[in-house]
Formats: sequence, C-alpha cells, structure tokens
Amino acid sequence: MDKEELLNMAQKPSEDAMKLHPFYQGKVEITLKAAVRDYHDFAIWYTPGVAAPCRDIQENPKSVYEHTNKGNFVAVISDGTRVLGLGDIGPEASLPVMEGKALLFKYLGGVDAFPICLDTKDPEEIIRTVKILQPSFGGINLEDIANPKCFYILERLRRECHIPVWHDDQQGTACVTLAGLLNALKIVGKELASARITMIGVGAANVATMRLLVAAGVPPGNIIMCDSKGILHKQREDITEKHPEKLKIMELTNAKQTSGGMAEAIRGADAVIALSRPGPGTIKKEWISTMAKDAIVFVCANPVPEIWPWEAKEAGAAIVSTGRSDFPNQVNNSLGFPAIFRGVLDVQASTITDTMCIAAAKELAVCAEEKGLNADRILPLMDDQEVFPRVATATAMKAIEENVARRVLTREEIMALARQKIGYARRQIKTLMGSGIIPLPPQNG
Amino acid sequence: MDKEELLNMAQKPSEDAMKLHPFYQGKVEITLKAAVRDYHDFAIWYTPGVAAPCRDIQENPKSVYEHTNKGNFVAVISDGTRVLGLGDIGPEASLPVMEGKALLFKYLGGVDAFPICLDTKDPEEIIRTVKILQPSFGGINLEDIANPKCFYILERLRRECHIPVWHDDQQGTACVTLAGLLNALKIVGKELASARITMIGVGAANVATMRLLVAAGVPPGNIIMCDSKGILHKQREDITEKHPEKLKIMELTNAKQTSGGMAEAIRGADAVIALSRPGPGTIKKEWISTMAKDAIVFVCANPVPEIWPWEAKEAGAAIVSTGRSDFPNQVNNSLGFPAIFRGVLDVQASTITDTMCIAAAKELAVCAEEKGLNADRILPLMDDQEVFPRVATATAMKAIEENVARRVLTREEIMALARQKIGYARRQIKTLMGSGIIPLPPQNG
Repeated sequence: MDKEELLNMAQKPSEDAMKLHPFYQGKVEITLKAAVRDYHDFAIWYTPGVAAPCRDIQENPKSVYEHTNKGNFVAVISDGTRVLGLGDIGPEASLPVMEGKALLFKYLGGVDAFPICLDTKDPEEIIRTVKILQPSFGGINLEDIANPKCFYILERLRRECHIPVWHDDQQGTACVTLAGLLNALKIVGKELASARITMIGVGAANVATMRLLVAAGVPPGNIIMCDSKGILHKQREDITEKHPEKLKIMELTNAKQTSGGMAEAIRGADAVIALSRPGPGTIKKEWISTMAKDAIVFVCANPVPEIWPWEAKEAGAAIVSTGRSDFPNQVNNSLGFPAIFRGVLDVQASTITDTMCIAAAKELAVCAEEKGLNADRILPLMDDQEVFPRVATATAMKAIEENVARRVLTREEIMALARQKIGYARRQIKTLMGSGIIPLPPQNG
Repeated sequence: MDKEELLNMAQKPSEDAMKLHPFYQGKVEITLKAAVRDYHDFAIWYTPGVAAPCRDIQENPKSVYEHTNKGNFVAVISDGTRVLGLGDIGPEASLPVMEGKALLFKYLGGVDAFPICLDTKDPEEIIRTVKILQPSFGGINLEDIANPKCFYILERLRRECHIPVWHDDQQGTACVTLAGLLNALKIVGKELASARITMIGVGAANVATMRLLVAAGVPPGNIIMCDSKGILHKQREDITEKHPEKLKIMELTNAKQTSGGMAEAIRGADAVIALSRPGPGTIKKEWISTMAKDAIVFVCANPVPEIWPWEAKEAGAAIVSTGRSDFPNQVNNSLGFPAIFRGVLDVQASTITDTMCIAAAKELAVCAEEKGLNADRILPLMDDQEVFPRVATATAMKAIEENVARRVLTREEIMALARQKIGYARRQIKTLMGSGIIPLPPQNG
C-alpha cells in the first residue's frame, strides 16, 4: 500500500462517523439500574421512601457506595483545549470524543462514565470544578487538556481529591506504552535497567511515559528527550519556568548531556518512543539505521506514524509499534483505562499510584506473552476479553497492597466482580441491540 | 384510619427503600445509544473517526445537537442543603434523591438526567459551576437548595445561562399547584382574577407559586402570605434585607394589610395553599370553618398534611389536596418536570419562561378536566400516559410563540417527537426488565 491508500484507510472512519453520529444523536444515554414495577415504586425510589437511605448516608458516609451508583460513576472531564490532533476546539466540539470515551468505558470496563465538557480554560477553575464535582463520582478521568497546564492540574488533583483522578493522555498512554516496551525488550533479550531510550516529542504522553519508565526501573540518565528544537540538555537556554516539566527533564535525563537534533538523539538508542509530528518523514530511515542492534521503534503519531513501519524495518528495526489499529502492535489506550478503572472502583481506591499503573502494564504484558510473543504481537488485542478482568485485578490488588483501597477483597473476589460487571455491560448492550432498541446503522453500513 | 396507621403507611416505603437501595446499588446508570457491531466500530465512535464530527461542531456550533446527546442531557444539580424534609444533609447524602429524580426524568419524560451533587454551599460557586457545566447539557434542573439562596441562584442562572435552568422545588411545584387550583376553581365556579388566596409558609415552593399565580392573573393584593411569625404586612419590622423575597412579598401582597396569625390569614379566603410544618394540627379545623363558601384547601406538608383531609372537609372545605399519593388530589411534581423538559429539549429552548410554565399548568388542568372533574379528581393521575406528551407539546409550542425556541416545529411534529422519546424510554426499560438485566427485587417484595 502506498501513502495515499493508507491515508484513505484513515479517512474511511471519518466518513462513517459523519453519517452515523447524526443517525444516533449521541453515543451514551441514561437508563434505569433499578426496577419500576408500577407507579407505587416511585414512593421507594423518590419521596417519601428515599429519605431513609439519605439519612443512612448522612450518619454513615461510606454507605453512599451501597445506596447509590457513586461507586461506578466516573466523570470524563475536558476543557476541549487539546482534542485529538485538533488542538483547542472548545468544550462543545470535544463532546463527541468524551461521549466516545464513555462508550469505551462501558463496553470494555462496565464503568458508568459521563461526559463533562467544561466552559473554562483556567487551570484553577478546572481544579476547583473537579473538586466540587466529587460527591457524585467514584473517579475522575481527565481528557484532552492542553500541555503544560495538564501536568499541574493532574498533580494538584491527585493530591487534593479523595477519589482517584487520572489523565488518560498521560497515565493511560504511559501504561500501555510500558507494557509494549516490556514485551519488546523480552523479545530482543534486553533489560529495562540498561536500555537506552530516546523519546521524540515532549507532550503530555511522553512526559508521563518517561516518568513511568523511571518508576519502573529505567535509569533516568539513560533517557534522552527531544522536542521540536532538539535534545533537552542543561545548556538549552530557551527553556524557562513557563515549562517547569521541561526544566525537570533537563535535570533528570540525558546523563551524557548529548546535544543536537533527532539524528543525534536516536543514534545508538535501544528504543525510540515517538509521539510527535504526524509523518511520514518526521523520523528518517537513515536515523533508524544508526540505532543499536535489535532496535525497538514506537512511532505513535496519528493518523500517520513518524515513519512508515516497513521503512523502519528496512532500516533495521526489529520491532515497530504505532498508534494505528491497521498496523501490528497498536499502542491502544483502550487496553488500559477501562480495566484500570474497573479495578480501582471495585476496591474504592482513593488514588491511582504509579505502582498501580506499572502493575497494570505488567499484567497487560503477561497477557500478551501467554498468547505467544513475536515481533508483530507485543500487546494484547482488543478482542481478548480475558485481558480486562485480569488487568483490573492486578490494579486492584496493588491498590490493596499500597493501602489506598477502602475495600479489601481477595484476588478471587476482585476477579469475579470485574467479570460480573463487564459481563453485565456486554449483556445489557447485546440485549438492547438484539431487541432493536439500539438500532443497527442504516443499510448496515 | 387513625394517625398511627397513616404514619405507618408513610413508613412502608422507607422500609422498602432501605432494603432495595443496597440491592440495586444505584437507580440510574449509563448505557449505549449507538451500536457497536465489532471492535472496528471504535474507529468511528472514537479516534480517528470521531475527529470529523468534532470539526463539524467547531465550524457549526449548532451541530452539537446532531452529533451528540447534549440535546437530551439534563443535569440534576443539588448542594444538598435542603433535601426533602431533612434539611442540610450534605451533597453525598442527597445523591439517592438526585438519582431518583433522574429515574423519574427517564421513565416519565424520556430525558437523560444525570445526578450531580456539589461539594460547595457558596451561592457564587454554585452559579459559576453550573455555568461551567453548560456545554454537555441541554438543560439544568436545580434541586433541594436552601431558601433564600435558591431564589438568587435561580434568578442569576436564568439570566446568565444559554440553556434552560429550572428549580423544581420552585417552578415545578408552582406549576402543578396552579393546575390543581385552576380545576378546583372551575368546580366551585370561582374565578382566578377575584379569588382571595392565603398561603401558609414562605418557602421556595410557596414564593414561586405566589409569583406564578400573579403571572396567571391573580391580583397580588388578593394574596396573603403567612410565615412562622404570622401574616406578612408592611409593619413587620423583623423582616430585613436578609430575606429580600419577603420584603418584596410585603410590598406586593395583602392589599388590605391584614395582620395577625394563621387564624386571621385564613378567615374569608377562597383558597388556602399551605406548604409549612407537617401536621396534623398545624392548621386548625375551626380556622377552615371561617373560610369563604366552597373553600379550597391545599395542605401539602409531608409526610403528614397540615390538617387531615377529612377534618378539613368536616370544617366545610369543598376540595382538599395534599402531597400524598394515598389521598386524592396529590400535588405531584412528577406530573410536571418530565413533560416540561421533554418539550423544552425537543425545541432546544434557551429558557423556561413563566408563560411556558402557565401553559404547562393549563394543559395539565385540561387533561384532568377531559377525564371528568370532581372534588376528588382535580389533577391527572400518573398512569394517564397521554398527559406527558400533551404537556410537553403545550410547553414547546409556547416556547416557539415566545421566541425562545432554537428549533421551530409544528404541534404535530412536537407531539410525535415527545411520544417517540417517551415510548423509547419505556420500551428500553421494559426490555431490560423483561430480560432480567434489571432484576426484580428479591422475593418480588
């Protein structure tokens, strides 16, 4: 396939989306979780009966998890300032993405996520609003918030909220990338603790991935990060307090203080992790050929990777991963967040630590490994349904170990809960589709 | 039945509620509105396909109503400061009520309402938060916010929001009370324009009802309002700027400047509308007997009306209405808000005017009248399913007439839409219950 065909393939979902979004007018909606046998039941679910559970929660605050759906509600929150590759398109234009995320949460994780698009771009107001919204929710998923404010917002909210706050563009991508890298290293027989890793792009995902790599055991000095002006090192005078993250990266990474551009950054690296400008041609073939033997290349820009996978392989890469579902080894966040939240909610965790995130990544890696690793199969596929309860369980067990779980269960109980809740969501959707309540698209197209 | 039996009857729903809330762990949840045929559909509902509708909304902001469920999402928002008769129980303890409201919205109006309990009591923060939340929603339903701040919050939000904001404890109760009063006056052959009306209690509902009565044609001077310290008149020096609503009422009502307590307020009135302290004995039999001939008595305190209905009748009342479903003539907000929002959402109204509220009340009254009015039948019953699309249509038509509708449709189109959307919700719930996805309560009890 040539570039044009591949770009066209990336176009097909857009055409379908423009037909099918107006057909359905929304991707998620509210339905009943409790039975209404007749109108008398309203006296149980609303006044006067409902006063009793209200009083019970007032006296025993924890019972809110028994009397309501708080424990399964997650807010998908965005200010619309960095939506996909589209930039600052505003909160209303970001609603289709947040509804889509809610659809994935339900379908893959059995999580009741609700899309909330905020009409403010001010970091302090975003933080305050999220804190004010906590009572209804068991967790918060931030999405598509601009860099660098997203770092500050997440840091503040992780510290100040009593429910878990997650920024999927940071932690979600980092988790799945780590999983893929763990397996890629296994295949080529290298170690995380000695790998030399070059990261192209210093956006939310790569900064979070760098942090998670360090937490997972990569010596920070072995990492080189590269923004649009070149390698980050201590002589870079253009980097100021406006980008505190970059200042930290300059201190922490690049022990040898390598300078230069992408070519110099990539030379000799065991792995490249790129999340930068869509390609092809962002990363050149001749740069890949200067990497260490058995090179690992993650080129995850969308819709077109920084270099075509076959070009990277021709230049000597052993394993290539992208962000696209039509190439092997897709770094797909949907493998992460639905399962991670499933686990987190089921043990009522108060936060999602980096260690929990690493536990989820390791379980993802093991799931793929059990199916048989090879250069085109470093991550599980979406249709491996067993992955979700397993990753949920690994996350929840780590939460218990780290003492951030309010509810302590056994591994078997957590696994059973996750299976039950994901299974419930699938049955619900199947029933609604089977009965025509959710219709098929017109002409089944 | 004696008092004890009647109080016991009011207890039964509480007992059931304490059993069934933990059984279901929530009354509403999220489900899919769009089909997922297989994993390839994720490329339509999420990245990369979803970018196309996002761009379309960015260019044509109105298309958010086509590409998303915004047009059917309503936020049920409370700060938990005045929940039912329980007072300030906090946001988490109010969640069962807000979920219950969402259940009623869906079941009766086909509206996707989501419960949002706010962790702040500050009026300015509540206002700011609601404004920030607008992008995801087609409307806002405020609930159980303390008096007097609820007046200021509603007034500000009605003025400053571009989607309709409704406070059901004010407007909803006012609308259904007006409907009942219209029919009660028809039965006794009196006119709204000359009726003398006494209101016991100066809470959110009675203040809003007074305003709506005036908007509907009751001369304000004909109204007497009474708080716990007696009749509101211009010599009441205990009323200060802390209660701006009461100052306005002092100016507006009670043309004859009657003074005294409840006894003096009720004497000679054509109608009493009480929403004050639970009875019995709050309003005395001998006071009712001093009312005008064919007296109309609304005693709506919960769980026990200010005077038992039979006592009021023995004292000469022609028509008695309460807030209880086990007595005739229940003033039930559920007859109002689901249908009103159905109509408002279907024409994308920017606000809900008092005139729209009066149109809804008149349609409610006509619905009951067509079934045959009598002293025990002044309002429609909940199981008259035709009421909901009719009230929706009356509300929407008035929105179009008042130029607050963004979408102009014919009466037939609006009626068809309302029927379709309510019918869809009922079919969805029936399907989920029929297939056991929503289980019946244990022992069917």
